[in-house]
Amino acid sequence: MRGPQREAQSGMPGRVTIYEVGPRDGLQNEKAVVPVEVKAEFVRRLVSAGLDTVETTSFVSPQWVPQLADSAELLTLLGEVGRGRNRPVLVPNERGLDAALAQGVQAVAIFGSATETFARKNLNRSVDESIAMFAPVVTRARAEGLWVRAYLSMCFGDPWEGDVPIAQVVEVASRMMDLGCDQLSLGDTIGTGTTGHVHRLLDALDTNGIGAERIGVHFHDTYGQALANTFAALAHGVTVVDASTGGLGGCPYAKSATGNLATEDLVWALDGLGIETGIDLEALVETSVWMAGHLGRPSPSRVVKALAGGDD
Amino acid sequence: MRGPQREAQSGMPGRVTIYEVGPRDGLQNEKAVVPVEVKAEFVRRLVSAGLDTVETTSFVSPQWVPQLADSAELLTLLGEVGRGRNRPVLVPNERGLDAALAQGVQAVAIFGSATETFARKNLNRSVDESIAMFAPVVTRARAEGLWVRAYLSMCFGDPWEGDVPIAQVVEVASRMMDLGCDQLSLGDTIGTGTTGHVHRLLDALDTNGIGAERIGVHFHDTYGQALANTFAALAHGVTVVDASTGGLGGCPYAKSATGNLATEDLVWALDGLGIETGIDLEALVETSVWMAGHLGRPSPSRVVKALAGGDD
Repeated sequence: MRGPQREAQSGMPGRVTIYEVGPRDGLQNEKAVVPVEVKAEFVRRLVSAGLDTVETTSFVSPQWVPQLADSAELLTLLGEVGRGRNRPVLVPNERGLDAALAQGVQAVAIFGSATETFARKNLNRSVDESIAMFAPVVTRARAEGLWVRAYLSMCFGDPWEGDVPIAQVVEVASRMMDLGCDQLSLGDTIGTGTTGHVHRLLDALDTNGIGAERIGVHFHDTYGQALANTFAALAHGVTVVDASTGGLGGCPYAKSATGNLATEDLVWALDGLGIETGIDLEALVETSVWMAGHLGRPSPSRVVKALAGGDD
Repeated sequence: MRGPQREAQSGMPGRVTIYEVGPRDGLQNEKAVVPVEVKAEFVRRLVSAGLDTVETTSFVSPQWVPQLADSAELLTLLGEVGRGRNRPVLVPNERGLDAALAQGVQAVAIFGSATETFARKNLNRSVDESIAMFAPVVTRARAEGLWVRAYLSMCFGDPWEGDVPIAQVVEVASRMMDLGCDQLSLGDTIGTGTTGHVHRLLDALDTNGIGAERIGVHFHDTYGQALANTFAALAHGVTVVDASTGGLGGCPYAKSATGNLATEDLVWALDGLGIETGIDLEALVETSVWMAGHLGRPSPSRVVKALAGGDD
């Protein structure tokens, strides 16, 4: 069986854009260090499997994220494949933006936190200070004509703070978007969120002027909730879903090795409903098997296991 | 973090009955042979963790399912814990029913197939012949005052036949229920189904007189779709969900080792919405860790991995 039975579902979008985060969010959280040539091949394979939007890397200090220290080299290797408004790179600050601009990128993403504790742990500053840091990045990026995405992490729970009030997420999200960002990616960084939570947060954002058309959802599958949460978001009008081929990546702040929603599991789900993604699932599974060889561990994706015959 | 943030969702039931299939469907499909004392302890732990409905074993020929050859001994060990209308056992035929009745069980389940190929492979007879075999089982069980469940497998896809037309599932389901069964469990035996498929099948069953109040859903997580599919069913009014503690069991007809929807992942999802289940998640996770030790492999449940610190 190479694909699910097609049975349409009312109230679902006709097309979903998968925002592939494997090369960045995925590899950033893998223990194995992947050679830059393998990363370049990974991105090329993803694009040729039909993934239109691929976040390729991060221009962050190598001291903080040694896994992505080769970002400039990767973009050089990628050439045209690494440029364009659908090949964003993460930039934490103005220095990162400078480095990204020097490479001719046309899209960037900033990475904020909905909670004070994670802002301190991840960005070494308060939420206020981090937004002050992002402001000139977004202003300059927009002046250069770049597309800008705002990640907001810990939207559904925080490992230190526990529950994260929806009003707090809306407030920080609004401040991030008011900087001039084009898209907001709501991160369930530790994977604890559930479907009711997704509905309520999207409702609250909509009420506050951030509609589904500007939102992407970013679910980690740590507690097995990622796909169910994605469907809650789709029912709400969201059409951009972050996923990581092979389910690459974990979260260093959760005990489990389970990472992002696996792109293959998402594609299977969307294929079943006849929702267009433009993706060749078989090519994607082959890519995950190939990458698993480089990482020295099997893909946690259920679909990869089922189709490629892997084991737990 | 010991539980998800509580955020209610409209259109969801206030309470869900989890129909625990770990001791039967789970252990039946595990390679390891588990001693009968361990099985008894497993059932006792599940019940004391708050699982009200537990299918304990199967009175099937030991030649076909050696893993459950100890069913009579298990029920003897279980005593009262193994009896009652919420402690069903599987009976394939009249001989199985006799053996179950001799043990004083008060609830049984029969196991049919929506497809001809699986009926032949699993029951060694056609769909017609299998229904003819079930008829006296159900009649006698009802005459004895037993509660009767009808499993229907391959409702969402068949590994040999591929797509399974919804009309075909409805037809076989209707014939099974017309025998006099109390509940229908719709099985996605190979885990290929998606959410639109769930909605459409439930719609078609409802149109044909089998309403959500008589239906349970039984999803395998082979393609990562089980929880998303469960939510589609809940939105449709279904309140009985089959799950297996620790995600025990696989499907011998799919290449992957991934089994039933893990009870823990389901409980996490329901807890998040404030839907009552009566289950102590922590006790359940402890039980899965304990059982994983007996099986010699880690639980595939995401929640067990996250909370117990397991690894892929």
